[in-house]
Amino acid sequence: MISFENDYLEGAHTNVLAQLVKTNMIQESGYGMDNFTVRAKEKIKNVIDCPEATVKFLVGGTQTNQVVINSILKPYEGVIAADTGHISTHEAGAIEYTGHKILSIPSNEGKITAIDIDNLVRDFYNDKNYRHMVFPGMVYISFPTEYGTLYSREELITISNICKKHDLPLYIDGARLGYGLASYESELTIKDIAKYSDIFYIGGTKIGALCGEAVVFTNKNEPSHFTTLIKQHGALLAKSRLVSIQFLELFNNNLYFEISRHAVDMSLKIKKSLLQKGYKLYYDSPTNQQFIVVNNSKLQELEEKIKFSFWEKYDEEHTVIRFATSWATKEENVDFLIDLL
Amino acid sequence: MISFENDYLEGAHTNVLAQLVKTNMIQESGYGMDNFTVRAKEKIKNVIDCPEATVKFLVGGTQTNQVVINSILKPYEGVIAADTGHISTHEAGAIEYTGHKILSIPSNEGKITAIDIDNLVRDFYNDKNYRHMVFPGMVYISFPTEYGTLYSREELITISNICKKHDLPLYIDGARLGYGLASYESELTIKDIAKYSDIFYIGGTKIGALCGEAVVFTNKNEPSHFTTLIKQHGALLAKSRLVSIQFLELFNNNLYFEISRHAVDMSLKIKKSLLQKGYKLYYDSPTNQQFIVVNNSKLQELEEKIKFSFWEKYDEEHTVIRFATSWATKEENVDFLIDLL
Amino acid sequence: MISFENDYLEGAHTNVLAQLVKTNMIQESGYGMDNFTVRAKEKIKNVIDCPEATVKFLVGGTQTNQVVINSILKPYEGVIAADTGHISTHEAGAIEYTGHKILSIPSNEGKITAIDIDNLVRDFYNDKNYRHMVFPGMVYISFPTEYGTLYSREELITISNICKKHDLPLYIDGARLGYGLASYESELTIKDIAKYSDIFYIGGTKIGALCGEAVVFTNKNEPSHFTTLIKQHGALLAKSRLVSIQFLELFNNNLYFEISRHAVDMSLKIKKSLLQKGYKLYYDSPTNQQFIVVNNSKLQELEEKIKFSFWEKYDEEHTVIRFATSWATKEENVDFLIDLL
Amino acid sequence: MISFENDYLEGAHTNVLAQLVKTNMIQESGYGMDNFTVRAKEKIKNVIDCPEATVKFLVGGTQTNQVVINSILKPYEGVIAADTGHISTHEAGAIEYTGHKILSIPSNEGKITAIDIDNLVRDFYNDKNYRHMVFPGMVYISFPTEYGTLYSREELITISNICKKHDLPLYIDGARLGYGLASYESELTIKDIAKYSDIFYIGGTKIGALCGEAVVFTNKNEPSHFTTLIKQHGALLAKSRLVSIQFLELFNNNLYFEISRHAVDMSLKIKKSLLQKGYKLYYDSPTNQQFIVVNNSKLQELEEKIKFSFWEKYDEEHTVIRFATSWATKEENVDFLIDLL
Repeated sequence: MISFENDYLEGAHTNVLAQLVKTNMIQESGYGMDNFTVRAKEKIKNVIDCPEATVKFLVGGTQTNQVVINSILKPYEGVIAADTGHISTHEAGAIEYTGHKILSIPSNEGKITAIDIDNLVRDFYNDKNYRHMVFPGMVYISFPTEYGTLYSREELITISNICKKHDLPLYIDGARLGYGLASYESELTIKDIAKYSDIFYIGGTKIGALCGEAVVFTNKNEPSHFTTLIKQHGALLAKSRLVSIQFLELFNNNLYFEISRHAVDMSLKIKKSLLQKGYKLYYDSPTNQQFIVVNNSKLQELEEKIKFSFWEKYDEEHTVIRFATSWATKEENVDFLIDLL
Repeated sequence: MISFENDYLEGAHTNVLAQLVKTNMIQESGYGMDNFTVRAKEKIKNVIDCPEATVKFLVGGTQTNQVVINSILKPYEGVIAADTGHISTHEAGAIEYTGHKILSIPSNEGKITAIDIDNLVRDFYNDKNYRHMVFPGMVYISFPTEYGTLYSREELITISNICKKHDLPLYIDGARLGYGLASYESELTIKDIAKYSDIFYIGGTKIGALCGEAVVFTNKNEPSHFTTLIKQHGALLAKSRLVSIQFLELFNNNLYFEISRHAVDMSLKIKKSLLQKGYKLYYDSPTNQQFIVVNNSKLQELEEKIKFSFWEKYDEEHTVIRFATSWATKEENVDFLIDLL
Repeated sequence: MISFENDYLEGAHTNVLAQLVKTNMIQESGYGMDNFTVRAKEKIKNVIDCPEATVKFLVGGTQTNQVVINSILKPYEGVIAADTGHISTHEAGAIEYTGHKILSIPSNEGKITAIDIDNLVRDFYNDKNYRHMVFPGMVYISFPTEYGTLYSREELITISNICKKHDLPLYIDGARLGYGLASYESELTIKDIAKYSDIFYIGGTKIGALCGEAVVFTNKNEPSHFTTLIKQHGALLAKSRLVSIQFLELFNNNLYFEISRHAVDMSLKIKKSLLQKGYKLYYDSPTNQQFIVVNNSKLQELEEKIKFSFWEKYDEEHTVIRFATSWATKEENVDFLIDLL
Repeated sequence: MISFENDYLEGAHTNVLAQLVKTNMIQESGYGMDNFTVRAKEKIKNVIDCPEATVKFLVGGTQTNQVVINSILKPYEGVIAADTGHISTHEAGAIEYTGHKILSIPSNEGKITAIDIDNLVRDFYNDKNYRHMVFPGMVYISFPTEYGTLYSREELITISNICKKHDLPLYIDGARLGYGLASYESELTIKDIAKYSDIFYIGGTKIGALCGEAVVFTNKNEPSHFTTLIKQHGALLAKSRLVSIQFLELFNNNLYFEISRHAVDMSLKIKKSLLQKGYKLYYDSPTNQQFIVVNNSKLQELEEKIKFSFWEKYDEEHTVIRFATSWATKEENVDFLIDLL
C-alpha cells in the first residue's frame, strides 16, 4: 500500500547509493579518520560559508540531540525548548537520561519566541532561590518545526540575539533542514542557519541518506575531546565512511536542496488539493508535512487505501492526520492520494 | 532580627536534643545496623498502624526524593508531578540528574487531580508512538503542598485509586507532613497517609529534628538492596543513630503532632490577623505557611523590621511574600509580627 | 597503501550492497517495524536454532555493549569482565557512563576463567560489607577475544555453568563472532554460542556489513520495553531496514560463515609465513588477527610500505604489531605482505 | 559488649554536643547561608593557613567523594586511585554511578606511588587509541589510607609534583585526617595537606562529630555553581548549621587534633601490647587502626567477649581482624582488650 506515513520510508537517493557502491572497496581508516570524512567536512564548511566551523557526523537524530546537548551543557544546566520539541516529546527521555532537565516553553505551532526565552532567563535569575534550580544553559529549536512550520528571518535573528545576550548557545535541530530551506516561504538559507546558530545539524536520514546527520559547530565551539564524548555515548561509527560518503554526494551539485525542493513541491500539491476540496488544515505548513482534520468515517475510508500518520484526536468525531512527502515521493503516488481525498 | 523566613531556622526540639545528649556515649554499629534504628522503625510502624511497612532513614528532603524516585522508577519511566512540586522546581534537577523525566501536570494551588493523572496515562497509551516516549511510572504529590494547601480525604482516595488502576506507585512528599496532619482542616491522619500511599516520607528536618526524614514503604515494596542504592547515591549516614534517635523522640508521646499543632496555631493566629487587617491572601492556607500580597512600600517597611520570604512578583506594585511558622515559633514573635502588619 | 590495519577498512560485501540497492525504493516503516526486520529476526533464530530467542538490531559494537549491559544490570550491579575486554579498555568509559562499574578479572591472552568468576562472586558475598559494594550482576566475555584467542568448548560450558550457579547472565561480545566460529580451532558453533549464553551479539560491522550488530536474547530474557531503552540511549535507527537487510543477506546461504572463513584463511597464510620466517608471535591466534613482536628497525621499514596496527611497546627495541584480515582481504595483498616480511 | 569495631560508634565529642545545645534556638538561614557556616569557613582557612581556599560542608564521606570527584572531572575523564581506595571498594559504585571510571593502580599497603601515576598517564597518551579510552582526570589518595598507613612528606610532595606536571588535580580523602596527622610518625601537618593538594576533606564523622565533612578547595578551584551541584546530588543540608557548628567547635582550641591524638595513643597502646604478646601485625599502622592476623580459635574466643572487625580471610586457619580506636575510646576499654589478647 502506498504510504505517506513519514519521510524515511525508502533507502537512499540513487546517487548516494551509487557512490557507496563505487567507493566500496577503497580501504580507509575508521572512526572519522578516513579521507571521505575529511572531504565531507570541507564540503559542508564551503556550503555553509563558515570557515571557522567544525563538523562531525553522527548516525541519527535523537542520538545527535543527546550527544550535542549533553556535551554543551554544564552539569547544572538544562536546555530551553518548546514543549512540542522533538526532545521534549518523542525521544524517550534521552536528554533527561544524560542528567539534564528540559526547560519547557509553551509553543505556538511548534515555535517559541525570543520574548519567552528572555522571560524564562530573567525569571530564573530574579528568583532568590535560583541556586536551587536548573540553570538555563542553551536553547533548542527545530527548523522546520515538528509541525512543518518555519521561523521567519526576523524571528530567528531575534532569538539568536537574545541567546547571545544571555550567553546561551543556540542549537537548531535540522532533522528536516532541507525541507525547511527548500520551502518557498523560507526566508533563510543554510548560510543563515550557520550564521545565526551556535550549533545545528543537517539531517540526512530524512533527506536522501540511509542514515546520518552532520553536526556543525559554527564558531570554534566544539566541545573538548568531542570524539571521546561521542564514543562514550556509544555513538561513534567504526565505518565513518558510511555517513561521510553519503554527505559528500548529498552536497554534490546541490543534490540536497534539489531533492528537498521536490518533497516540498509534492507536499504543496497535496496541500493545494486539500484546500480545494475543503479540508481543514490543522497547521498551515509550507514544508513537507501536511496536517489535516478529517472526520472519522473519512479516516476509516482512507486507511483502507493508503498509509499515513494519525497525529492526534481532534474531537469525538474528528482526527488529525499527517501526510509526509520526501525526496523519494513519486508524483504518481501523490496523484493517487489526491484522487482518494 | 526575628525571622519567619522558613521552617528550618532553629536546631532541634529540646526533647530531641536531650535524647541525643543522653545516648551520646552508647556504642552502636552504624549504617542502619544500630538498635536505635531498629527501635525507631518499629515505633513508626506502630504509629502508622502498618505492620507490613518497611522504614528507612535519610538525611534531607531532596535526597529522599531523589533516592526514592530513582529506586522506584524503571529506567524508561518518569514521575508524574505537579509543575509546582518541589521536585519540579527547587531541587536543581536532582530527579533528571538520575536519568528520569518529570511528567508535569499543571497544578491548582499546588495540587493535582486524579482526572489529570488519568488523562496523562491514557493519552500516553493512546499515542501510537508511546514506545518513543517516557512511560509514566509513579505519581508524586506533596502533603501539604508547597503552598500549604491540603488534599481532602476524597481527593487523596481518588488519586490513590487511579494510581492503583494504572499500577503507578503513589509517593507522598511529607517534608511538612506534621504541619498538614495537624491542620484543623486536615481530613487525614498519618494512618490514612500510610493506607492510601505506596511510599511516603515523614519530614523531620522541618519538624523538630536537626536533620532526617523517615521513608516508609507501605506494602512490601521496598526496592531490592535499597541500602546499597542509598549508599550508591552517597546518602547512607555512617552514624545512623543521629536520625533514628531523633525520630524515636519525635514519636514519643505524640511529640511530632503536638509541635506540629503549635506551628499551625501560630500560623492561624497570623492568618486571622492578616484577614482582620484586610491583607489579601494569595493562597488560603490552613497549615504553617501564609502567603500574602503586599504593596511594595509595605514590603520595604516590613523588611526593615522582620525577616520573611519573597515568594514572587505579583504585579508592578505588589509582591507575594510568605510567613512560615514552625515547632519553634515563639508566640511573642508572632505578636510582634502582628503588631507590625 | 595496502592496509592490514583493522577489519573495517572497506564498505560491505558485494551481495550485501546489492541487496541494499535492490530493495532501495520499497516503502517500509521504520524503527524496527519494517518487514525486513521481521524476516531478519526469523532468519537469525533459525540459524542459531533457538526458537525462544528474541533479536534486536543495533548499529555498532560499543553501542551494543552499552545498551545491553545497562539494560540487563540492576542499578546496584556491575559487570564482570576481563581487564583486557573491549568494555574495560577501548570504549571511553561507555559502561561507567551508564552508572555501572566493571568488575575486572585479570585475563590470560584475553580470556577469563570460571574459577576466577566463581571466586569473585564468593569473595563478594563473604565480605561482611558487601552491601557497601557493587554487586556482581552479569558476566561479559568476547568470542573471539580482543587478542584473537578462543574459548574452548569446555571453557565456555564451565563459565556458562558457573554463571547459572550464581544467577549471572552470560553475555558474549561477538564483534568478530564469525572470525571465531570460522577458525579451524573453534570447537563451537553459533548454536553453541546461543545455547551457552544468555545474550550475545553477532557482529556485522567487522564482517561484511556497512554497520550493524544483531543482539540475541536467548531465553525470553529481553529487557522490558527494550525498544524504548534503545531509543533512550539514542541508539534506535529510523531506517531499521539498513541493518536488517544486511543481516538478511549475510545469513543467506551461509555468506557470513564463508566470508569469515576467507578472513581466517588469509590470516593463517600470514601466520604460517611469519613462523617460517622466524617471527615471534605475541599471541598464538587462530582467527583473523596476528600479533607479532618486531624490532624497531624492521617496524620502520614495514611502515613505509604497508599499513598495520601498533599494538604496544614490547621493550626498548621491540614493538608488538597487529595484522588484521577480513572478509575483504585480497590474497594478492596478503602475498605482497608476505614478500615484505 | 565493648566494641573496637570501627571509629564511629558513639555520638559527638561533649564540647561539640554542648555547642549544638547552646546555639539551638538561634535563628539562622539555611543551605550554607548561616553565620555559623561563614565563621566555620574562616576558622578552617586560618587553621590550614590558606587564605585562597574555599570551604564547603557536606554530610558524609562517600557523599563527599562522589560530589567532589564528579564536580571536578570532565565528562570524558576518570579518577586515578588505589585499587584499595575507599572509592574503589566500599562505596557501592558511587563514583561510577556519576558516570566516571576509576583508573585503578595496585596499592602497597593502601598507598600508590608517583611513578605509577606517571606511568599510567604516559601509557595513556602513548596509546594511539587514547581517544577511545577514559582520560586520566584527577588523582585520589587517602591520608591516612584505609589500612592506617601514611604517605611520607617526600611521597606526598612527589605525588603532588607529578600531578602538577600532568595537570591532574590531587584530591585527598581525609575521612580520618586527624588520626593521620596526630600520628607520631606523620611528617605532615594540615597546612602541608592544604599546600600539596588541590582538594581535600577534613573528616568529622569519624573524629568527634555526629556527621559532617569539610571540603577544602585550596587554590580558587571550587567548581562553578558548586552549591547547585551539591543540591543536584541531594547533598545540600537545609540546616547547614548542624555541620558548621560542629566544625567550629572541633577547631576551637585544637580540639580536633587533641582528640585525634588520644585515638592514636589508645591504638598504639593496643599495638604495643599486640607486639609484646607476639601477635602478627598485618600492616604496621601508626594511626588509629590495628590489623592483626589471628588463628580462628582465638578469633572465636575473642568474639565472645569483645567486638571488632573481620577484615579478610588470611588462610584456612587464620583471619585478619581490625581494632579501631577513636576520640571516644576509653582507656579502661583498651585495658580490657589488652587483658583479653
